[in-house]
This record gives sequence, structure tokens and C-alpha cells, in this order.
Amino acid sequence: MKNKKFKGYAFVEGGVCAAQGFKAGGIHAGLKPGSDPNKNDLAMICSVKPCTAAAMYTTNKVQGAPIIVTRRHLRNGQAQAVIVNSVNANTCNADGEEKANLMCEYAAKALDLHPEDIIVASTGVIGQPLPIEPIEKAVPALAESLSETGNAAAVNAIMTTDTQPKEVAVEFTAGGKTCRLGGMLKGSGMIHPNMATTLTFLTTDCAIDHDLLAAALREVVFVTLNRVSVDGDTSTNDMVCVMANGEAGNAPIVTNEEDYEVFKDALYAVLMNLARKMARDGEGATKLIECLCEGAEDDKTAEIVAKSVITSSLFKAAIFGEDANWGRILCAVGYAPAEFNIKKVDVSLGSAKGTIQVCKKGAGVPFSEEEAKVILGEEEIFVHVTIGKGPGSAVAWGCDLTYDYVRINGDYRS
Amino acid sequence: MKNKKFKGYAFVEGGVCAAQGFKAGGIHAGLKPGSDPNKNDLAMICSVKPCTAAAMYTTNKVQGAPIIVTRRHLRNGQAQAVIVNSVNANTCNADGEEKANLMCEYAAKALDLHPEDIIVASTGVIGQPLPIEPIEKAVPALAESLSETGNAAAVNAIMTTDTQPKEVAVEFTAGGKTCRLGGMLKGSGMIHPNMATTLTFLTTDCAIDHDLLAAALREVVFVTLNRVSVDGDTSTNDMVCVMANGEAGNAPIVTNEEDYEVFKDALYAVLMNLARKMARDGEGATKLIECLCEGAEDDKTAEIVAKSVITSSLFKAAIFGEDANWGRILCAVGYAPAEFNIKKVDVSLGSAKGTIQVCKKGAGVPFSEEEAKVILGEEEIFVHVTIGKGPGSAVAWGCDLTYDYVRINGDYRS
Repeated sequence: MKNKKFKGYAFVEGGVCAAQGFKAGGIHAGLKPGSDPNKNDLAMICSVKPCTAAAMYTTNKVQGAPIIVTRRHLRNGQAQAVIVNSVNANTCNADGEEKANLMCEYAAKALDLHPEDIIVASTGVIGQPLPIEPIEKAVPALAESLSETGNAAAVNAIMTTDTQPKEVAVEFTAGGKTCRLGGMLKGSGMIHPNMATTLTFLTTDCAIDHDLLAAALREVVFVTLNRVSVDGDTSTNDMVCVMANGEAGNAPIVTNEEDYEVFKDALYAVLMNLARKMARDGEGATKLIECLCEGAEDDKTAEIVAKSVITSSLFKAAIFGEDANWGRILCAVGYAPAEFNIKKVDVSLGSAKGTIQVCKKGAGVPFSEEEAKVILGEEEIFVHVTIGKGPGSAVAWGCDLTYDYVRINGDYRS
Repeated sequence: MKNKKFKGYAFVEGGVCAAQGFKAGGIHAGLKPGSDPNKNDLAMICSVKPCTAAAMYTTNKVQGAPIIVTRRHLRNGQAQAVIVNSVNANTCNADGEEKANLMCEYAAKALDLHPEDIIVASTGVIGQPLPIEPIEKAVPALAESLSETGNAAAVNAIMTTDTQPKEVAVEFTAGGKTCRLGGMLKGSGMIHPNMATTLTFLTTDCAIDHDLLAAALREVVFVTLNRVSVDGDTSTNDMVCVMANGEAGNAPIVTNEEDYEVFKDALYAVLMNLARKMARDGEGATKLIECLCEGAEDDKTAEIVAKSVITSSLFKAAIFGEDANWGRILCAVGYAPAEFNIKKVDVSLGSAKGTIQVCKKGAGVPFSEEEAKVILGEEEIFVHVTIGKGPGSAVAWGCDLTYDYVRINGDYRS
């Protein structure tokens, strides 16, 4: 799937509640003693009817207990609700699976569903027993509170070191019907997705066949969430899931044709924008870095190069310092494990304030340091790397490396 | 080559001047206008007679001009002197090779040698033209100043963001003769060696066949310098070279037998200690992290796991915060691209103050946070990861991620 410009989609409010027939909510269950009562730590999403559902999971060998349980529940391609907590990842605990199952049971009971129809997820510290009592106690009130405007309370609950809630939703037309697709995502550390990423929950009222839903998710995740890196660490609890309840009334999408492409584009619009928000809000980040690599022999080569640039600690620190140290870009391009001719590499740096070429055919070109300073003073920095004349291209997103990344992670557990 | 304990070697003073028949020196050539006149930026090493010489170079596609020139000069397996500057990497400049050649010519003229017998190296900012005039002007005085105690002035000249000079030398016996091998190394950012690393200069008076010298260097570099990572960035100018002048008078080592093993062990002792010094002095580092992975199916698997741990930004930041956040170790073990059973992974954390087990069979075990705090308060932290019962093992070295790494790299060029 190529990166493209989108037309004909309207961005709408509402996040996971944008699509018809979905309610959501969030509550402060108190999973961390003494924590801010205004910060939720438990969220729920529920559809009015069973949904076709698909998900992708972390490739880390360490798999959080909720990942194991959700994988089992989604085997039949169906789900109707989500329960998710922050504070504690429920990973590497002997009783993890048992507690993930209990979370599903509590949610199912409160929502009058089967536990197998619940998607469960957790995020937070690894390796500390999950306090299950606060969850058991909070679930009935949480279920009671679900509403069509509950997306804000829900996204608040999944935030950990995130400084901003991350929600995107779009409206599009499929089969002559107006459909919506929206979602919420949490960052913002341990972000180096591989096959799937972080916690992302998507809902749509578009009717779509399960296999096509899963295929679209896979294809789009590869060019959005999987193109983001904050710190090179792939989490144990990454998951992205999508639930489609068909409430829009469109004729279900069952073939790989026009409506499917429209749906996939809508999914791209949502996930690409969530991916950008995640990168921009990477732990401690002050700037979003977007790297476009073009001219590669194939997209995979372009992806390897673009990711190498946005994951270079040295380059990330230079961007924090607003220093046009393009040698570090070329260095990161040079150690990317892919085949191309370094003597054909051009590099430009840009932002809303303009663009300057800093490297041509692998060698530096003179540029105005003053102009560079102005360009790098912006919050969204664009790096354009051309490595040849091939058709392959890819975009990757990252963020700068700052004092705050160290501060946040020097003492995360306490 | 396995990690082992060394016996029968005496560490000696003198760095690159420890071996007989080598002189060295350093001078402030003034490659950066207004820089501290007490900080050297140009060094030279010279042997009394031609040396058998071998080197390994960066695998970055971007290769500094000095790398290209040195590679050409070492094609015949011989060299007699080294010239090296800091401040400027002479990389990605249109006139880079020309200037690297000029450096060799100036050195050859001052030392009465052929330019082809000179090893040239540069380290510093990438992509800015190298000011050659200060070098031309300084070389005669530098050559004049070479002495058998000039190693301190030489190592001072190759330091960039290093806070400590890094020299190691050992004395050993080969063919009944006392031999010495010593070296100097620079860190301390853009450190993620791959086949070779950073700038390292080694000298020995031991007589040894060229092919054996090259083979020993390769074998030892793989388990020492290549096991260090400061920031995951592989530099464009990495090089490690060794010159052997035979002044010890031993019968030349020409077979793969006892003396060769002794020589290799001496080389290991020097490079392993230089590697540790490099990691400990990684940019901004306050702590050395040593990770031993054991029980792997083979050494390669163990190396992948050990390196994954010491390169995890999240774990590095936790160590800076003296936080026993072992979940991050297990997470990094889990995303290491190698095959093993995560349910068999044990993890211990240690230092001079003791050792605690934090994870057994992939799950947390209770430990005293107070004890952990005392252990992590030390400057050398030891992580022991057991991933099974296989014979494979490997050690890797890294450092913590600190505010100072960001400060140093947020504004490196100015």
C-alpha cells in the first residue's frame, strides 16, 4: 500500500464513539494507590450488536496475558465489547491469564454478554501483580456510565505517559451509505511497533466481511503504526483491534473491490493520523519527525532507510537541539541494512517554514545555517531522503530525543 | 572465541608506546578556531621500522575519506606510522580523499617515509570541509615531538566527547621473549560497532605473520569492540588497526599454535578493557552495564540477546534512575530477533554490592527494593540473563541513558 493524499473524507469528532451503535466510557478504578482521582484507569467500549472483529498483536516473545486471552476470544472473528486498563500491563505474572479472564467475566456480566465476546487489554508496568479487586468493583459503574459521548472518558483511561489524548474519526461512503470509522490510541514509550503496535481501538459501523477486515487492518498497519518509532523498544502488550457492527446499513463489503478500497483508505486516514499523533507525543518529545524515503528499488528498502533515520538517537537529539546536523542523517542512511548506492543519496530538511537541501550525491552542499535554524524551530520536521531512481517509497514517523525522555524513564515505576 | 579470565598477563603503562620501538605524540593544530589550546587535535604514532599491519573498518555505507585511503595503504599488509585528527571526520566532502592523501604526504615527509606506509584516520563532525592548512603547519613540529612517553599527548588528541583518555597495555611472553601490546581508543558517541568500531590504534613489538595478525584482530574484535553499544549509531569513520614491528625479538609467530593463542589472549585483554572503558565513558554515561547471556543454543544467539538488553533505551534510562525495572530487561530479551523459549528465561541484577534474582522462568520473583537500590547505586551494573541450558554465551557492554547524552548531542556541532 502506498502513501497517498486523501480526498472525499471528512474528519469527524467522537473517536471510538463516532460510528453508530458504539458507546464508551472510562472510570478511575484506583489501580494505583493514591493516584489522581481525575485520571481514569479503566475503559470500556461496547457495540449494540455483535461485531466482526480483527486484531494484530506484538511480535515480542513476551506476550502480555491480555494478548493471550484476546487472541483466544477473537478466534471466531467476533467481538462486542472492549475492556482495558492502564497502570499495570498484567504481563509476566503467574496469575496473569486468570486475571485477564476475570476482567472479561466482569465486563460480560455487567453488559449481559458472553466473556468470549470481550476484547481485553492492559498497559503499564510489566511484572507486578494486577490488583483485580478495584476492577471488579468498578466495572458495574463503568458499564452503567457508557454513552455515545463517552469516548473522551475512555481515551483518558488508556493514557499512560501520554500528554495528549489521541483520537481520530472519519466519515465516508460505502454502498451508498454514510459510514464512520474512528479510534483511539495510547503511546507514548516502548514504541517500536512490529506487526502491530501500542494499544489502538477502532470501531466502525460499516458492514464488512471478516477476512477483508483483517486483510485491510494488516495492510494499513504495516504503513502506519509499524512506521513509527519512539525509542526502539517493542512492547509486550501491543495490540490494535477493529470492531465493525454494520449499523450504517450498507450492503456488507464482501469483495476486494471499490467499497473495500474506500474502506481501506478510511482506515489509512484514521491510523496514519493516530500514528502521527503517537510519534508527536512520544515520551518527552517536543517535535514530530517525518521521514520520506523515495527512489528506492522497492517499498521495503525505502522503509528500512526511513526507519533508520527516525530511530537514530544522535539525529533525534540533534533535532531537539534544532541543529541541522545532516551528517547524522547520512550516517543513519548509511548503516541501514539495505542495498543502494550511497553516492546517489540526496537529503533535504523541511518544515512549514521552508525546505533546504543539505546533501547531494552523498556529499554536503552549502546552506544557510540561519535558514536551517528557522526551519528546525518548527514542531513538525520533514526529512526527505532520495536514494536513487527506483519506484519504492515509504514514510516513517518519529520524534526528538529530549531530557524529558530520560526523566520520564529514569523513574517510571514510582 | 569465548570470554575467559586471564592469567599470566601483566598490565603495564604506556598505551601505544608500551611496545618497544614505538613513539607517539599529539599537538594542538587548531582545527577548530578558538578551541582550547591545551586540547590536542592531531596525533601521530611511528615505529622505528616497518610493521606488519592489519585493520578493520566500519560497515556503514558512508565511509570516511580516511577509511578509503587507509584501506588502500594497508593492501600490502604493511605500515609504519599513523596520523589522526579529531574535530573533523573528513567524511562526505568532495575533497575528502585528496585531503586524506595530503595528511599522509605531510606525515611521510616529516618522518622520512613513503605516504603508502601511513595509516590515516579522522574523527569529528561529518560533512564539513577539513581545514588542511593547520595540519600541514603542525605536522613538522608534531613529528619532532614524538617520544616514547608521547602516548598521553596522542590519546588526548583523539578524544572528542570522551571524558577520559582510554589506554590499555599488557606484557606477555611469546617464543621466550617478553612482548608488549598496547593501544588507545576514542569513544564516546555514535557507538554501535559493526565489524569494527570507533578509532582504535594498537601497537605491539611481537613479531607475527600478517595473516595471523589479521585473523587474531578479527576474532577478538568480534567479542570485544563489536559487543559495545552506546547509542545504536554505527559511525562512518570506525576503524581499529594494529601494527606489529617485531622489536621484541621473538621468533615470528607463523603458525596457529601456542604463541598465537598467547598473542590472541593479550589482544583480548587489551581490547576487552578498552571496550569496557568505551562503554563506561559513553556520552553522558554515569554507569557501565555489562550483560552476560548464557544457556543459549550458540554464541550468536547469546550475543543477540545480550546486545538487545544493553541497547534498550528504556532499560538504559531505568539504570540511570537506579530503578530495578526488570520488566524492561525481559521486554528487550523478548524482542531480540533470535529463537529461544521465553518461559525459560531467568534474570539477575548485580554489582559489587551483591546480586538479586528478579525473574525466574519468565515471571517476576519477589525481591527487596531496598537491596536493589543499593546494588544499582554502584557504577558497574551486571545483568545476568539465562535463556536455557545450551552452551552458548556472550557478554555485551553498554551504558545508561542520561540527561547529558541529550545535552551533548542536542548541540554537538557548535
